[in-house]
Amino acid sequence: MELRLPTGELVTLAWCDDGLLVLDQTVLPSRTEYLTLTNEKQMFDAIKRLVIRGGSAIGMGAAYGVYLGIWKNTYTDSAALITDVNRVADYLATSRPTAIMLFQRLDEIRQLAADNIYRSVEDIKEILLQRCHEIRQAGIDRADGIGEAGIELIKDGDTVLTHCNAGTYSGIWRGSLAPIYLAHEKGYKIKVYADETRPLLQGSRLTAHELQAAGIDVTVICDNMAGYLMQQGKIDAVIVGADRIAANGDVINKIGTYSVAVLARHHHVPFYVSGSLATSVDFNTATGAEVPIEERSPEEVTEGFGNRTAPHDINVFNPAFDVTPHELVTAFIFSDLGLVYPPFRKAFDNNRDSIL
Amino acid sequence: MELRLPTGELVTLAWCDDGLLVLDQTVLPSRTEYLTLTNEKQMFDAIKRLVIRGGSAIGMGAAYGVYLGIWKNTYTDSAALITDVNRVADYLATSRPTAIMLFQRLDEIRQLAADNIYRSVEDIKEILLQRCHEIRQAGIDRADGIGEAGIELIKDGDTVLTHCNAGTYSGIWRGSLAPIYLAHEKGYKIKVYADETRPLLQGSRLTAHELQAAGIDVTVICDNMAGYLMQQGKIDAVIVGADRIAANGDVINKIGTYSVAVLARHHHVPFYVSGSLATSVDFNTATGAEVPIEERSPEEVTEGFGNRTAPHDINVFNPAFDVTPHELVTAFIFSDLGLVYPPFRKAFDNNRDSIL
Repeated sequence: MELRLPTGELVTLAWCDDGLLVLDQTVLPSRTEYLTLTNEKQMFDAIKRLVIRGGSAIGMGAAYGVYLGIWKNTYTDSAALITDVNRVADYLATSRPTAIMLFQRLDEIRQLAADNIYRSVEDIKEILLQRCHEIRQAGIDRADGIGEAGIELIKDGDTVLTHCNAGTYSGIWRGSLAPIYLAHEKGYKIKVYADETRPLLQGSRLTAHELQAAGIDVTVICDNMAGYLMQQGKIDAVIVGADRIAANGDVINKIGTYSVAVLARHHHVPFYVSGSLATSVDFNTATGAEVPIEERSPEEVTEGFGNRTAPHDINVFNPAFDVTPHELVTAFIFSDLGLVYPPFRKAFDNNRDSIL
Repeated sequence: MELRLPTGELVTLAWCDDGLLVLDQTVLPSRTEYLTLTNEKQMFDAIKRLVIRGGSAIGMGAAYGVYLGIWKNTYTDSAALITDVNRVADYLATSRPTAIMLFQRLDEIRQLAADNIYRSVEDIKEILLQRCHEIRQAGIDRADGIGEAGIELIKDGDTVLTHCNAGTYSGIWRGSLAPIYLAHEKGYKIKVYADETRPLLQGSRLTAHELQAAGIDVTVICDNMAGYLMQQGKIDAVIVGADRIAANGDVINKIGTYSVAVLARHHHVPFYVSGSLATSVDFNTATGAEVPIEERSPEEVTEGFGNRTAPHDINVFNPAFDVTPHELVTAFIFSDLGLVYPPFRKAFDNNRDSIL
C-alpha cells in the first residue's frame, strides 16, 4: 500500500476506522510499509523505534497515541476516562526525551480532557479525536507559514544544505523544508544537498526520498562532505529543523546540526532554523545546556547498514542530539512570527503573550 | 590465516616466495583475509579497490607492484627490463591520483633501475626487490620517528581524536598514530575517539580495529559527533595523517579532514598532521588547490554496507579527499624534522636540501 500526497511524497500519518495508519520510516527507502496502530503500546514503540520521528510527527503521534490508549475502553464515568488519559499521557511522555512537541501535545490532550469533564465519556472521546485531527492539520498550516516566511531568504538558483529530515516525513507536510518546496512550486531552480545524517541516515533515506518524490533536485552527501562544499562556495544557505528551541534561542536538534552550524559560520553561510514560537520554543528551557541528550544504542553505529562495520566489543558513543548555541543561528523561520533575527530571547519574550 | 605484529595489530604487507601477501582491508573487521599478489594488474586492482590504502602502504604497494610486473618475465637485456619497469610504473601511477608516496616510490624504483642498467637482468631484479623491502622498513622507521617527535605533544590522560585510518593499517607500523602508540607503550592513560569516516568507514573498520588489537582505549563515533565532543571539552588534540602536503603546508587528506580542522580551530583544539618532509611534502604542488580531488562511485555512499541506504536514481556527490588550508594546522609531526610550526613554507624550504 502507498498513500501519496498530491505533490508525490508519502503520507506519514492517516486516521482510518481501524486506527492510525503510520508510514514505517525505519524501512524507507527500500520498502514502503504502513502499520496500523490500535493502542498506546504500539504508539510508544513506534516513537521509540523511530517508525514515527521528527518533532512535528512525534507530537501528532503522541496526541493520537493518547486517543488509541482510551478509545476501545469502557469507563464508568468521565472522571475515570480522564484518569486514564493522564495515565496514557504519562506513559507516552517517556518514549523519547527531546522533542518539545511530544510534551506539548500530551499536555494539550490532557488539558482538553480535563476541560470537558462535565461531558459524557463518548463525547470526550470524540472531542479528543477531533483535536488529534486538528493537530495534524496544524502541522500542515505551520509548514505553509514556514514556507511563506522563508521564501524571501531563497533566490532563484540557490543551493541549500540540510541535515537530517525536517521535511514532510518529520510531520505531515513540508515541515522545516517548506521554503524549499515553495521555491520549487514557484518555479525557482533550487538545488538541495542532503547530509546523509549518520547513524540512522534520515537524510539519505528520508530527505532524499521526499524531495526526489516531489521532483526537487537533491544530492546526497556524507556528513563529512558539507565543509568541503562550503569551502568550494557551493552552499548559499543551511536550513534545518529543531526538536526544541530554548528560551535564549539555543537549538536542540539531530546530532551533527551543531557541526554544520560551526562550518556555516566559518564560511559565512547563513544558518536558518525553521519552526514556530508556539510549538518549537520551550520557555521552560532557559538554555540548551539544560536539555538531556538522548544516547542511543551502539548498534545504530556499528550495525546500522545490515553488516557490522566495527570490531566486536568496541566502545561506541552515540548521542542522538546536540545543542547549537544561538550565536550560530542567523535567523529563525517561524510560521507564527515570520523571520526572527537576534536578539532571539527578546523577540521570543515580546511575543510570548501571542501564544498563550 | 592471520599475521600479527608483536603488539597485536594485523600485518598489512609481507613478501613471501609466491608474491606479496596483502591484508584485504575491504573486508575488515568482519573477516581477516590475505591475498597473494603475483602481478602488476593485481596490484593495480588492490590499490584501486582499497585492498591496500593509506599513503604509506600505497607507496609500498606501488614499489612491490613494479617488481611484480617484471619478476616472472624474461628479458633479452637490461635495457628491455628497464623499459618494462617504466611501463609498469606508468601503469600503476594511474591507479589512484592523490597519495604523493605512490608517485615518489614509483619514481624511486624507476630511477633505481635506470641507475643499474649496466648490471645483469637478474641483478637488477634482485636490487629492485631489496629496495622494496627497504621501503617497507622505511615505513617502520618513519613511524618511530613520528612517535618520538609527537610524544611531547601528549600528556598522560589526554584524549585524541583521529579521522580515517592513518595508523598501522595505512602502512606497516603505527604510521601517523605513532605518538598514540608510544604514549600507550609508556604507560600513559590515553583515550582515542575514532571518526567512523564515511563512506568507507576506515575509522570504525580499521582504526578501531588496530587500536583495539593493541590494547588502546578507543571509541567509535560518527563523523558528525566530533563537534559535539569538542564543544563538551572532551578532545585535547586532533592527530591525522596526510596523503599529500603542498609546499605551503596545505594538507590533502581523506574527505572530512577539513571539517575536523575547522571544528578544532573553532574550539581551540590543536590540530596536528603527521608525516615526513621526505615522503609527505610535494614541492611540486604549490598549494592544495592544485591537487585533483578523486571522486569515487555513488554506490560507496548509497550501498556501502550491503543494504541500500538511499533512493534509487538519487544524485550523489562522493569526493574522496579534501584540502585543509595550512592556516588550520597547528603543527606537523614529522619523522625527519620533528615538530614543525608555522610558517610552514619557510620550514619546508629551509630543509629541502636535507631530503635531496
